[in-house]
Amino acid sequence: MIQTDIAIIGAGPVGMFAVFEAGLLKMRCHLIDYLPQAGGQLSEIYPKKPIYDIPGYPSVLAQELIDNLQKQIAPFHPTYTLGERVEGLEKRGEADFVLTTNLGTRIEAKAVVIAGGLGCFEPRKPVVANLEEFENGKGVNYMILEPEFYREKNMILAGGGDSALDWTIHLANIARKVTLVHRSESFRGAPDSVNKVMKLAEEGKIELILNTNLTHVHGNGSLHSVSMEDSKTKEARTIEADYLIPLFGLSPKLGPIEGWNLNIDKNAIEVNTEDYSTNIPGIWAIGDINTYKNKLKLILCGFHEAALMSHSAYKYINPGVKYTMKYTTVNGISEF
Amino acid sequence: MIQTDIAIIGAGPVGMFAVFEAGLLKMRCHLIDYLPQAGGQLSEIYPKKPIYDIPGYPSVLAQELIDNLQKQIAPFHPTYTLGERVEGLEKRGEADFVLTTNLGTRIEAKAVVIAGGLGCFEPRKPVVANLEEFENGKGVNYMILEPEFYREKNMILAGGGDSALDWTIHLANIARKVTLVHRSESFRGAPDSVNKVMKLAEEGKIELILNTNLTHVHGNGSLHSVSMEDSKTKEARTIEADYLIPLFGLSPKLGPIEGWNLNIDKNAIEVNTEDYSTNIPGIWAIGDINTYKNKLKLILCGFHEAALMSHSAYKYINPGVKYTMKYTTVNGISEF
Ligand SMILES: Cc1cc2nc3c(=O)[nH]c(=O)nc-3n(C[C@H](O)[C@H](O)[C@H](O)COP(=O)(O)OP(=O)(O)OC[C@H]3O[C@@H](n4cnc5c(N)ncnc54)[C@H](O)[C@@H]3O)c2cc1C
Ligand SMILES: Cc1cc2nc3c(=O)[nH]c(=O)nc-3n(C[C@H](O)[C@H](O)[C@H](O)COP(=O)(O)OP(=O)(O)OC[C@H]3O[C@@H](n4cnc5c(N)ncnc54)[C@H](O)[C@@H]3O)c2cc1C
Repeated sequence: MIQTDIAIIGAGPVGMFAVFEAGLLKMRCHLIDYLPQAGGQLSEIYPKKPIYDIPGYPSVLAQELIDNLQKQIAPFHPTYTLGERVEGLEKRGEADFVLTTNLGTRIEAKAVVIAGGLGCFEPRKPVVANLEEFENGKGVNYMILEPEFYREKNMILAGGGDSALDWTIHLANIARKVTLVHRSESFRGAPDSVNKVMKLAEEGKIELILNTNLTHVHGNGSLHSVSMEDSKTKEARTIEADYLIPLFGLSPKLGPIEGWNLNIDKNAIEVNTEDYSTNIPGIWAIGDINTYKNKLKLILCGFHEAALMSHSAYKYINPGVKYTMKYTTVNGISEF
Repeated sequence: MIQTDIAIIGAGPVGMFAVFEAGLLKMRCHLIDYLPQAGGQLSEIYPKKPIYDIPGYPSVLAQELIDNLQKQIAPFHPTYTLGERVEGLEKRGEADFVLTTNLGTRIEAKAVVIAGGLGCFEPRKPVVANLEEFENGKGVNYMILEPEFYREKNMILAGGGDSALDWTIHLANIARKVTLVHRSESFRGAPDSVNKVMKLAEEGKIELILNTNLTHVHGNGSLHSVSMEDSKTKEARTIEADYLIPLFGLSPKLGPIEGWNLNIDKNAIEVNTEDYSTNIPGIWAIGDINTYKNKLKLILCGFHEAALMSHSAYKYINPGVKYTMKYTTVNGISEF
């Protein structure tokens, strides 16, 4: 069992900065994130994009900001559980919370801070009746982790964005056969990738099926074939395949947090702006995941929320202990 | 008459960042500060000190942060009135405010943002009955602007901090005579400066009078002599002098802002945390100058307040106009 002062769900920029603010007040933090790395949306969605509204940075690349936050919190040695999703929350006795992840890791904390952003990123799935029967290694995958795994396999990819286009190009040389199915005839991806896919199709190196929706998946224990329908002619066809990879993007979900009896408004947790506490004593919500009147989903706002939350959590964890804030320029940082 | 969308009183870090947030929403800003330069406390009090709690900066020198903010707001071309103190506030007609400075500059604005920090820095004065009679060029000055002005003059400096020590050392070679009067026998300044002053006194280059308080000033239209009393022996003495320079530090004062009918609590302006607006519609207060439950006087908190204020001021200035926030990474910055 991992033990800490504050368990922070979500290692995005706001959860990371909370480690710093809590650290100034001598509270230890453990960060948990479903993604394999810290950095939240910035590292996962737009690491190479410049951000212009981080105060004091005329421009900073998203990943650069995360790297700097990593350095800033290093003196307080946060610990991490990455690649795991927090699913269970339990209040034990008077003071302590126990969090449980999908892999069974247990974290005991005096206070819980939810910095879950938009939630866990989960694949968007096409509406195909028995799709789930073939998930978990039986032929339907939503992410390509290791392309070599598909060498000499017969594959159907579905989708019209960059991810579908890029993997089609990449796998054309690896798989035995690649069929790309897309529900419209225009693609949302980079024009260059669209051209490459068109050329591969002309040369017969892949098969391209446009204006077509997936309808059924068939097989006996493992995938055998996929049925689809032309959206204009309504003509149906079935194609054999070892693997179907729907690549319709990732969509964030609050997920298990919805079941924790927190006050939720439109996928976000309602907080008190006096200290960003939730309706459950001992649980705070900061960053994109919280909501209040005039909320702006900005990184800089999450930083402020992290500061006020830390002072409030300090009082909760150390009832009656008086603390006078000292400026960092005056006192510096005491590592622990 | 200067005209602008938002008049910002105080060009500290928070007032500066407000220019950026307002600029994203296409509102022009004019900054007014009593100090001769932008940067507030950071440039005036601790330009060379490292700050450790600016999010994304493991460490940044105060002046470096101000320089970066200067670059960040440059695309929105803020205008400045520096070296002047805002004293008057008038509401004209339905919508507009007119601000007036001590030098008579008038600024017309649709909205007013008070980012005045701890207020205007004013000299701390010793308790000497008729001191004010000799202010304004008649022999008592609280700041040394041009040391050459005192060449061959007979001077009394008073105080025990760095400023008193440093000016004593500097003026020893310029003035005809320098007497340093200090109420105790230990100094608060840098040990090195203390040693230098002691040496100058031993060598007879200055006169050092310890454990002594100023009691009276004498003269006829201009300063002639200063009386003082030994705090232990109660012995009194009077010394001739052309100039008396009490150097007891600067103390910030809300000053004229106190007379604007704003709700004030302990030298700070009460605001609504929904948007950091004050009790007067059209006036906001952000940064160190405002107060609310759990307020932390931190730079990073002022940044968040500037963001929420800007969205609120936008609605006030453009009633009924709908605005959807766009991320800077997506839209960039449109200079104006
Ligand atoms: C394209 C794009 C451009 C943007 N541009 C800007 C900009 O210019 N300026 C700006 O201020 N903001 C911008 N944003 C918004 C900014 O990215 C968010 O405000 C910021 O990421 C919020 O940080 P956070 O730490 O609250 O959440 P996130 O960054 O979303 O991190 C939350 C983390 O929590 C994890 N998590 C959630 N639930 C669980 C769970 N149950 N178990 C384990 N882990 C969990 C997630 O995996 C995620 O890593 C942009 C966003 C996008 C998508
Ligand atoms: C030694 C020291 C160390 C610090 N360390 C830290 C730290 O590590 N981290 C941190 O976050 N904060 C720190 N602070 C606090 C930080 O400096 C303040 O939070 C910050 O300066 C507030 O910014 P501001 O823009 O609100 O106000 P200020 O920086 O105070 O600027 C306000 C400006 O308004 C002007 N003004 C006021 N009234 C008028 C008027 N009527 N007319 C014209 N001009 C006017 C003043 O001249 C001033 O320049 C420290 C402060 C000090 C003194």
